[in-house]
Amino acid sequence: MTAPRLPVASQQAAAQSLGDDPSGVGAEMFGVVAELYPICRSITGDGVRQTLRYLSRDLPLDIHEVPSGTRVLDWTVPNEWNIRDAYIKDSRGRRVVDFQLSNLHVVSYSVPVHARMTLAQLRPHLFTLPDRPDWIPYRTSYYDEAWGFCLSETQLLGLGDGDYEVRIDSSLAPGHLTYGEVLLAGKRADEVLISTHICHPSLANDNLSGIAVSAFLARALQGRERTFSYRFLFIPGTIGSVTWLALNEDRLHLIRHGLVVAGVGDPGPVTYKRSRRGDAVIDRAAGIVLRHCGLRSQVVDFSPYGYDERQYGSPGFNLPVGVLSRTPHGQYPEYHTSADNLEFVTPAALADSLRVCLAMVEILEDDRTYVNTSPKGEPQLGRRGLYRAMGGVPDPGTMQMAILWVLNLSDGSHSLLDIAERSGLPFGTVSEAARLLAGRSLLLGQSAR
Amino acid sequence: MTAPRLPVASQQAAAQSLGDDPSGVGAEMFGVVAELYPICRSITGDGVRQTLRYLSRDLPLDIHEVPSGTRVLDWTVPNEWNIRDAYIKDSRGRRVVDFQLSNLHVVSYSVPVHARMTLAQLRPHLFTLPDRPDWIPYRTSYYDEAWGFCLSETQLLGLGDGDYEVRIDSSLAPGHLTYGEVLLAGKRADEVLISTHICHPSLANDNLSGIAVSAFLARALQGRERTFSYRFLFIPGTIGSVTWLALNEDRLHLIRHGLVVAGVGDPGPVTYKRSRRGDAVIDRAAGIVLRHCGLRSQVVDFSPYGYDERQYGSPGFNLPVGVLSRTPHGQYPEYHTSADNLEFVTPAALADSLRVCLAMVEILEDDRTYVNTSPKGEPQLGRRGLYRAMGGVPDPGTMQMAILWVLNLSDGSHSLLDIAERSGLPFGTVSEAARLLAGRSLLLGQSAR
Amino acid sequence: MTAPRLPVASQQAAAQSLGDDPSGVGAEMFGVVAELYPICRSITGDGVRQTLRYLSRDLPLDIHEVPSGTRVLDWTVPNEWNIRDAYIKDSRGRRVVDFQLSNLHVVSYSVPVHARMTLAQLRPHLFTLPDRPDWIPYRTSYYDEAWGFCLSETQLLGLGDGDYEVRIDSSLAPGHLTYGEVLLAGKRADEVLISTHICHPSLANDNLSGIAVSAFLARALQGRERTFSYRFLFIPGTIGSVTWLALNEDRLHLIRHGLVVAGVGDPGPVTYKRSRRGDAVIDRAAGIVLRHCGLRSQVVDFSPYGYDERQYGSPGFNLPVGVLSRTPHGQYPEYHTSADNLEFVTPAALADSLRVCLAMVEILEDDRTYVNTSPKGEPQLGRRGLYRAMGGVPDPGTMQMAILWVLNLSDGSHSLLDIAERSGLPFGTVSEAARLLAGRSLLLGQSAR
Repeated sequence: MTAPRLPVASQQAAAQSLGDDPSGVGAEMFGVVAELYPICRSITGDGVRQTLRYLSRDLPLDIHEVPSGTRVLDWTVPNEWNIRDAYIKDSRGRRVVDFQLSNLHVVSYSVPVHARMTLAQLRPHLFTLPDRPDWIPYRTSYYDEAWGFCLSETQLLGLGDGDYEVRIDSSLAPGHLTYGEVLLAGKRADEVLISTHICHPSLANDNLSGIAVSAFLARALQGRERTFSYRFLFIPGTIGSVTWLALNEDRLHLIRHGLVVAGVGDPGPVTYKRSRRGDAVIDRAAGIVLRHCGLRSQVVDFSPYGYDERQYGSPGFNLPVGVLSRTPHGQYPEYHTSADNLEFVTPAALADSLRVCLAMVEILEDDRTYVNTSPKGEPQLGRRGLYRAMGGVPDPGTMQMAILWVLNLSDGSHSLLDIAERSGLPFGTVSEAARLLAGRSLLLGQSAR
Repeated sequence: MTAPRLPVASQQAAAQSLGDDPSGVGAEMFGVVAELYPICRSITGDGVRQTLRYLSRDLPLDIHEVPSGTRVLDWTVPNEWNIRDAYIKDSRGRRVVDFQLSNLHVVSYSVPVHARMTLAQLRPHLFTLPDRPDWIPYRTSYYDEAWGFCLSETQLLGLGDGDYEVRIDSSLAPGHLTYGEVLLAGKRADEVLISTHICHPSLANDNLSGIAVSAFLARALQGRERTFSYRFLFIPGTIGSVTWLALNEDRLHLIRHGLVVAGVGDPGPVTYKRSRRGDAVIDRAAGIVLRHCGLRSQVVDFSPYGYDERQYGSPGFNLPVGVLSRTPHGQYPEYHTSADNLEFVTPAALADSLRVCLAMVEILEDDRTYVNTSPKGEPQLGRRGLYRAMGGVPDPGTMQMAILWVLNLSDGSHSLLDIAERSGLPFGTVSEAARLLAGRSLLLGQSAR
Repeated sequence: MTAPRLPVASQQAAAQSLGDDPSGVGAEMFGVVAELYPICRSITGDGVRQTLRYLSRDLPLDIHEVPSGTRVLDWTVPNEWNIRDAYIKDSRGRRVVDFQLSNLHVVSYSVPVHARMTLAQLRPHLFTLPDRPDWIPYRTSYYDEAWGFCLSETQLLGLGDGDYEVRIDSSLAPGHLTYGEVLLAGKRADEVLISTHICHPSLANDNLSGIAVSAFLARALQGRERTFSYRFLFIPGTIGSVTWLALNEDRLHLIRHGLVVAGVGDPGPVTYKRSRRGDAVIDRAAGIVLRHCGLRSQVVDFSPYGYDERQYGSPGFNLPVGVLSRTPHGQYPEYHTSADNLEFVTPAALADSLRVCLAMVEILEDDRTYVNTSPKGEPQLGRRGLYRAMGGVPDPGTMQMAILWVLNLSDGSHSLLDIAERSGLPFGTVSEAARLLAGRSLLLGQSAR
């Protein structure tokens, strides 16, 4: 991974370039996805370490190791799982199911097994997708000691009766849960949390896409001045966020905004899922960005099923954390199958997702409340060069409207985000209007919220 | 009337069986309607007494007699009206309009008359429905001393000129207003009020249907443990509720929820009319039940025209009383005509209406606020047998979603009804999830509201 | 202008007669528009004085003169502009553009010029509408010293190369800003503000229509008893309202409701633009009137672009001032062109606009909160002659419904306007029901708000 060349675009510039990949950043992120694709990850183990080491080449990543058995909230850090090989051999010694060809073939967290058995004995340990006969499903058994193989329905139908040698060369033993963390300090200690799960094996959209976009978002933010501090988490799903929350409970009050980034590489509609609060600033920022992004998009309500927002949005924490994805999880047939591969994600979709993230960050960074210093009547904008000289023209233009809206609503109780929402104008335009007005002393700036 | 065999079904079970009559309770209620159909009721008189005596066979009915002349709120209990016979005879002595054939033929509360007159003299006392030439309208003149006959347009057109003998053998004299009351005491003194009008003669849907459904609801509630106390009123419309309110003003503060049951036997859409408050618990319970009942249904806003909700919802009382009906009054052509007969109501519609009532009662009884005892992160459901062992499957299923919603929203400020509304899940599923969680000490129960 | 013969119609009567001009008042207003059409107005100068003098024939108009150079809020009253003649002559001395044919030909506030120049030198001073080749645009340059001519694209294309004599015989020098004001005192000092701009030359809809409707509204209100005081402003746009606000800042607290009247003569949909507050009484009154007016209509949200509501609704004042127009400014092609002429406005549209204004005034005047003196149950309306004697009829009728709604909601916290909104009934019907009930002591009246 090389440093992203994406300039810190204003929201407007970002919106304008959405839909293609002029800076090449989409192709770069796709390269990251492709390099990480072969690694067999799970919620613990060397696949996670290998992934984090790769990311740490370009990011100041702290890698944490939490021992198995550690109590974290209502949970316990499980034993560490590693796997070297797995196969089902037929009576002639041919590997008819082979972990070396796809790490999806083994149910994640399968305990070791080496046995000879009939197809009938093997059958309860085999998982297929009859409706998608050529795809391999992805299955896990993290908290229930079991073993199994996933294979295509076509493979299953090809298995003759005879005896089979079944081997899973795995280990499940005390070790560690591993996760990565990047803190980019800003002017304020208040934090924006970006959380991405890293526990899936060879699945491209879920969630190598999220890993790539989060990493490039971090790199983009490294290169700019920041009001907020930004904390990026690269964690295994559920147990990772539970662990991080348990270890950082005394610092959660610093989190002002948060976003889970997951499944952001497919070409489906940009989807923002609201935080449990429903009207947090991050929710409103996402609404504004999606309204103007020029892409198919949707905003959906919080529900307690999905990714790590379940943990951040549990009632004891209730953090303002939303989710950015493309097609929501479970709503595309490739979800959790071997078809979620490098053909399913596209450089353009990755680039669009990154730009949406950057536009949201721009709002978080730039939102503030100004006070109109000339609140009685409109100030005479013409003599300040802020109003066209020639009158009578029907359409005032977008920037002129933004100037009028900012003046009209800057009564101390409306922030720029409020103004963008009420006016229907892009946040970047509203923000630019405020800068113009502040430059002529028509606004007094307040601190960001 | 025999005791209803309907088990106290959970809301879910009720919803599942909606649309047919497997328990035969619809047929039983239809039998009640058919038996009460011939009686000539009005707002006072022996028809009401006869109806209440019939109901008291199976219900612990208190029958109240309030003397004519009693001041009740702004009203006065009127004289009692009874009728024995009435007819119009033509010059050849044939009964061309005959009360013995239909009690609708006489305007209710007609004063006695016995006279001979021409058709022209008679004409102002005759009421027909020209648009429905074969139907007899239903008309009343409770508070204006008058007399009249209702007949079909066809009958009217058949009347020749000659002289007619007109006879109404009625009495209008000091007596009593009669109503019935059933109180089923519960654990709490707080009451749910179920109110049904009993003042109409041979009209099946309006309101023998309401009488039957209310009576069977009372019987069903007799057989179960009750948190609330349930008060059933079988009263004449308007003057009955006015009288009851006047006599019970010191106890109205006990009424927590209320429902007028009227016109619940036709196969039209289930209609709930909100209380004057608009957002009472009974209003929200009805909304949830109708959303999931599997029948055509609608929720309409309060208006001060209709049944006894006008009195309960007058500004000085403002009780949280809604109305359950099928097609709203006045919106079906059979309304207040002889076509509202035993062919217009169906056992299935009666059964569905009763089940809707029971499902609403289930919510009133079972709604409560729990507190998640493990509010930080999700509790690990898998080790408690509340989460499927095999991970990766896209669809979590309804009960799994209910468990997650209940945990997520049980922060002390959301009741099960709130959770059902926000999650879009049936109340029964939410309630069952709460029972499962409370059984594993993941929820602490609070008292019902 | 003769005194309007329009009776002070109740809202209902007004609504019923909308759509035609039975009283001839539309024709009278059209006559005013036609008489004022030829005058060359601008934001200052003799055209404004001439217009105000015309209005003062029938209205008690105070004409104010504010000296150039006066500081008003953030603005300064500009020099006074007057014009006598202007033309462009070709090399043969023919007037190819002639102010005497249309005062739109000169950019308003053009400084004097008398020069000979080539077409190339002249070109930057010429304004056309290429898409509407036969129309002359309307352009101004109030605050930027410049000069220019507006002409049709056809005229422009006909100009040969040679030399041209250019003459604008105008003066721009210290003088006065002129505006007119009518105060109709009411029982209360609280005011309703009606504001109309008078600064446009030969444009019929914008805003001779507003001038005519405002003047006739004033005349209609002269002839009736008034609770509120009514202040009518006939002012130049922007600088006029800024000036008036600056000079009257100590009295603005008296303004309870306000309306800008502009562009009310075209046959487009009646459009009400909400005040900045969005839920002011005037906003709600307009909503009710438009809902029942029987004309195509729309209610749109406030935005800080348009007419003088920009000044009244600036954050330092935030007055409850909405805007009544037909097709909104800038949304019809004739806007600010020579096609906004006497063919574009119609007597019927003017009459409808006036009636809408009168219906809004009726609500402002008549809205009040009553208290039901018999709030427990319905009062017995029959014995007071307020309920039909014959019962059983399905449809109670509009006035009966209004009586029931007024009784039901008159609990001290709902005004007649609230009741009209919730019931969906016309305000006039609700108001009439309240009068009937108050006449029978069933309501106690409160003062208007």
